[in-house]
Amino acid sequence: MTNLAVVGGGVIGLATAWRVARTGRSVTLYDPEPARGGASWLAGGMLAPVTEAWPGEEDVLRLGEESLKRWPGFAGDLREEGVDPGLAGHGTLVVAFDSADAGHLDILAGHLHSLGRAAARLTGRAAKRLEPGLGSVRSGLHVPGDLAVDNRKLLQALYDACARRNVRFRRERVEELPAADAVVLAAGAWTGRLHPLLADAVRPLKGEILRLKPRRGCLPPPSHTVRAVVEGRPIYLVPRGDSELVLGATQYEAGFDQAVTARGVRELLEGAERVFPALTEYELTETAAGLRAGSRDALPYLGELDGGVFAATGHHRNGLLMAPVTADAVVAWLEGDEPPEGTAAASPARLHQKEHV
Amino acid sequence: MTNLAVVGGGVIGLATAWRVARTGRSVTLYDPEPARGGASWLAGGMLAPVTEAWPGEEDVLRLGEESLKRWPGFAGDLREEGVDPGLAGHGTLVVAFDSADAGHLDILAGHLHSLGRAAARLTGRAAKRLEPGLGSVRSGLHVPGDLAVDNRKLLQALYDACARRNVRFRRERVEELPAADAVVLAAGAWTGRLHPLLADAVRPLKGEILRLKPRRGCLPPPSHTVRAVVEGRPIYLVPRGDSELVLGATQYEAGFDQAVTARGVRELLEGAERVFPALTEYELTETAAGLRAGSRDALPYLGELDGGVFAATGHHRNGLLMAPVTADAVVAWLEGDEPPEGTAAASPARLHQKEHV
Repeated sequence: MTNLAVVGGGVIGLATAWRVARTGRSVTLYDPEPARGGASWLAGGMLAPVTEAWPGEEDVLRLGEESLKRWPGFAGDLREEGVDPGLAGHGTLVVAFDSADAGHLDILAGHLHSLGRAAARLTGRAAKRLEPGLGSVRSGLHVPGDLAVDNRKLLQALYDACARRNVRFRRERVEELPAADAVVLAAGAWTGRLHPLLADAVRPLKGEILRLKPRRGCLPPPSHTVRAVVEGRPIYLVPRGDSELVLGATQYEAGFDQAVTARGVRELLEGAERVFPALTEYELTETAAGLRAGSRDALPYLGELDGGVFAATGHHRNGLLMAPVTADAVVAWLEGDEPPEGTAAASPARLHQKEHV
Repeated sequence: MTNLAVVGGGVIGLATAWRVARTGRSVTLYDPEPARGGASWLAGGMLAPVTEAWPGEEDVLRLGEESLKRWPGFAGDLREEGVDPGLAGHGTLVVAFDSADAGHLDILAGHLHSLGRAAARLTGRAAKRLEPGLGSVRSGLHVPGDLAVDNRKLLQALYDACARRNVRFRRERVEELPAADAVVLAAGAWTGRLHPLLADAVRPLKGEILRLKPRRGCLPPPSHTVRAVVEGRPIYLVPRGDSELVLGATQYEAGFDQAVTARGVRELLEGAERVFPALTEYELTETAAGLRAGSRDALPYLGELDGGVFAATGHHRNGLLMAPVTADAVVAWLEGDEPPEGTAAASPARLHQKEHV
């Protein structure tokens, strides 16, 4: 297999195209608007598999941890290409407003310790010492090693790295699969339209996300990623240095609708103002909605669908986190090497099995 | 006075330029972005002096009523120019959530009756019959004769009418007064920079306003303009047919800052969802902030400042409403006719008097 077509120019498609182009293969990437326009462009950029994981999603956690291990090397390789991957290591602070939240933080802390990760339970007062702008929180969980990535910097870096490695960009929407020795389907929520096996397996998960800027005289954004659950809705605030705050994210099943709703914006602002009251005076610079690629079981589909056609989609909230392990898996498939740990569970072969849900 | 320079291309400047050009005078209008870019472009477009009036602002009310009387003729003249002024007569429904609000509606109703205007107090149930999408309101006041104008259509119409009457547009910011037989200063919140007498008399009053669109399956916008006070904050919902809803407006003293704030957006959405719950599923299509021109006493400044230099600014929330009376006043000054009733109280001569505040 000496030439590869990648369908989709989000983080998965770009990372795959770059990694494969480095092996000397000829790569063509198809996307009407590479880097921009998809879920990756809108994401918050947290690389935090544990604080993102939901109970029962152990396979997702394993794959996320595997990818997280690969992130520093992935970022280093990008730097070697002369581009800035936008990686930041500012850690996560998860805050609790009530005893149910606090119980959840105890479980998370135990989980992190069992993985050998540093994590400290904090009183409300200690959490406020760490982040003086917090509202009235009951307690917190500090995960100092959590990474975050500036998703827009990363996408630009991957795009530039692809260009340097002579990836050809075809700015078009793919209606039928391109002719190539191998094809990787990485079109996110739209991937279901490209292969019958994925037609009912990949669905759009709508998410709304806001971007804000501190105005003159405002408290700067928090120095950590701050997460919380407000009135049952998970919320995160991801700082981009002192100049921007990304606030996400809603999650709905709403088909391919990408309208920013009044409810979504209001709920995000209400929740975030409770977590970090100074935000009320921030400038709201962007409201946007995008479509994550949902799978049936929250694990992505990674593997061969049929002769030379591979799936690399269905990453839910985890596209940025799982880009390195996904791209490395594609390289392994093409080279005939052993794919990364955790990817076997994500094989699309499970789509042929009787559903156990 | 055979040639006129108008500084400012909002509704006041455009209406003035058009009206004066119709008298055969040569008119030049200065604005870097005529029609767009100012408070008029962002406005809700209610032409409702009574439901807008605050206690103690009788001069404002009188001037507003005088302009309202002129609105149908003004719109008719625009139609004769072959342009659409965007005038709609869908009436206003003011709703009350508590007994304090209800008492305020009683006073408004009495006031409207004393002016000979039709106005009906309604029970909550009757208000909901009129507008089935209303939330739990205690009572209402229906003012069927209230007008509204699609501000963006109007600005386009005025711009086109000016062009047909050979008004010259100079797309530039005015630093010093243009040479002309007469100059009208109508630069809204920025007018204070153009004349020393206005320097401390005109100030920016920031306002945030949102535009929303019903998504498929949503209840359409209300058929009336709906006004309410939610948690002490006045709010209005102005329908633009079935396809758009304008939601305004905050009011702050914030200098020349035009940032859309998290607080402003959140408060408008919270308030509007209480008034009209279906809005929660609407698409939020625009968030914007603009600067109204505030005066010291809520009355505009209309009249000569010194030899041949006239003020037409300081219209607060009432620029669209008061455009006809303002433009007619300018024509009267130039022609040496009697200016419209109510304009004498708005003379800038009051800036020389001792302040009684």
